[in-house]
Amino acid sequence: MGERIVVALGGNALGKTPEEQLALVKNTANPIVDLVEKGYDVIIGHGNGPQVGMINLAMEFANTRGGGTPYMPFPECGAMTQGYIGYHLQQAIQEELKNRGIDKQCATVVTQVVVDEKDPGFQHPTKPVGSFYTKEEAEEIAAEKGFTFVEDAGRGYRRVVPSPVPKRIVELKVIEKLVDAGVIVITVGGGGIPVVETSEGLKGVAAVIDKDRASSLLAQDLNADRLIILTAVDQVSINFNKPDQIELDSMTLDECERYIGENQFAPGSMLPKVQSCMEFVRNNDSGGTALITSLSRAADALEGRTGTVIKK
Amino acid sequence: MGERIVVALGGNALGKTPEEQLALVKNTANPIVDLVEKGYDVIIGHGNGPQVGMINLAMEFANTRGGGTPYMPFPECGAMTQGYIGYHLQQAIQEELKNRGIDKQCATVVTQVVVDEKDPGFQHPTKPVGSFYTKEEAEEIAAEKGFTFVEDAGRGYRRVVPSPVPKRIVELKVIEKLVDAGVIVITVGGGGIPVVETSEGLKGVAAVIDKDRASSLLAQDLNADRLIILTAVDQVSINFNKPDQIELDSMTLDECERYIGENQFAPGSMLPKVQSCMEFVRNNDSGGTALITSLSRAADALEGRTGTVIKK
Repeated sequence: MGERIVVALGGNALGKTPEEQLALVKNTANPIVDLVEKGYDVIIGHGNGPQVGMINLAMEFANTRGGGTPYMPFPECGAMTQGYIGYHLQQAIQEELKNRGIDKQCATVVTQVVVDEKDPGFQHPTKPVGSFYTKEEAEEIAAEKGFTFVEDAGRGYRRVVPSPVPKRIVELKVIEKLVDAGVIVITVGGGGIPVVETSEGLKGVAAVIDKDRASSLLAQDLNADRLIILTAVDQVSINFNKPDQIELDSMTLDECERYIGENQFAPGSMLPKVQSCMEFVRNNDSGGTALITSLSRAADALEGRTGTVIKK
Repeated sequence: MGERIVVALGGNALGKTPEEQLALVKNTANPIVDLVEKGYDVIIGHGNGPQVGMINLAMEFANTRGGGTPYMPFPECGAMTQGYIGYHLQQAIQEELKNRGIDKQCATVVTQVVVDEKDPGFQHPTKPVGSFYTKEEAEEIAAEKGFTFVEDAGRGYRRVVPSPVPKRIVELKVIEKLVDAGVIVITVGGGGIPVVETSEGLKGVAAVIDKDRASSLLAQDLNADRLIILTAVDQVSINFNKPDQIELDSMTLDECERYIGENQFAPGSMLPKVQSCMEFVRNNDSGGTALITSLSRAADALEGRTGTVIKK
């Protein structure tokens, strides 16, 4: 068996429409299959921001404006994105494997991720989802359904949902069996369908789990050799967008801490990626390292030609 | 390893709203886990008629009536139902396993099913999907997108899609690996996401594959010992709803043929179920039999107390 790599793909890299997504998954499949061809066992986590936003918006619009469809809770919309994105992604990867004559399978596992009901994130919802409303509409829906709304950059009021920390991947054993059997697994889509533990079993909650954190947890649980977080840039920088910007080849955990103390990484952007990498590196006993780089340079980065390595 | 059973669940048995579905999957989980407890290896195929209709309708409504979401092709809506239904179903089954102290996993695999581009079904689309339109609207959309519309029982015009025969389950090897590893697999949701083979790889098509036919193909490919098709009645009848109605304990393939010749089974209802069973029995070398019964009596039927067995 080869080295195990968990790759975290951004939902934004998959576009905003089904046509865009179908085209973009081909760009994604290529570097993923490069890794497979080099002998790595690849497991893919992915985001779903634009996609769950779109589905939630369509469901909400049709439900409230006379489309005659039922109210669709947020976790169910997330489950839909796993089918929608997984279908395109696995199809593109299967095709690329076939084109290169590699006899391997790729499949998507519908995945729930447990979060803590007492997560402080639930007290401070921050992720905007769904349609824009007027102040009056927002107040009415808030009173009826208990949602939280915030004013969004002058464009109206939007529902916000919490972003709790992932605690447990429900389908982990299934994922592990598939990885052991050599299957390229697509999982924790959109960070996983967020569920809480209740006395009657698991129950979906309206939340968005950060996909980098979920992928980091997956990499920890699978005892992966590498976590690769893909983003828009080839390397992490300090003094970003300033004359003295420096692109980093590597960071130790101590250096990460120092840079975070200096506010070098933007919250909601590079910061959670660095933190997710740190968590993986800290909790990995076999010397596993994390890597932040761009999709197109992932294979290069694994060979040390670009990217930023995070290590103990 | 136990006997392998493929169970085909109806999409109608899952209700019309997410709340209904969440309640109904609990009723479904119970008899499924009964089978697991008796030592059977269970693989679940399911329909998605009401669910894909709902999602397609919401997407169409939001796209055409100002919701601002993109046009969503039909196979992508089917992929969404696999996430949506799989999530609820696997959660309920996992919970029931846990309650009974059974250490087994259950998971949903996003599944594509290849159909033949030249399938005669494509010349005669019959399955109504999505919204109702006026004659004028329907003609306009037909001209723009090439869809086929039919007048539906005086309620307006509705798009119809073909129902081609399933030829190949793309993720079969993955399903097989999971079944071998003892996982309860939920697959071929809605009959599978329909795809055709093209020179550039697989491509989704607007169609609905009959879930009983897809489950039969799955049972054939997995060399299952049993195919169970669940429906609203405990047993298949001849002279249905007549004074001389007879409930059948079993039918040989020859008897099936004879009854079909007598038009004993309603097209679009019992007929495709009987045909799917016949196909499994005919193509199974190890004496596998098929069973048509109700969800609640599935375990009883396996012990011969009810149901209709189809055998060579």
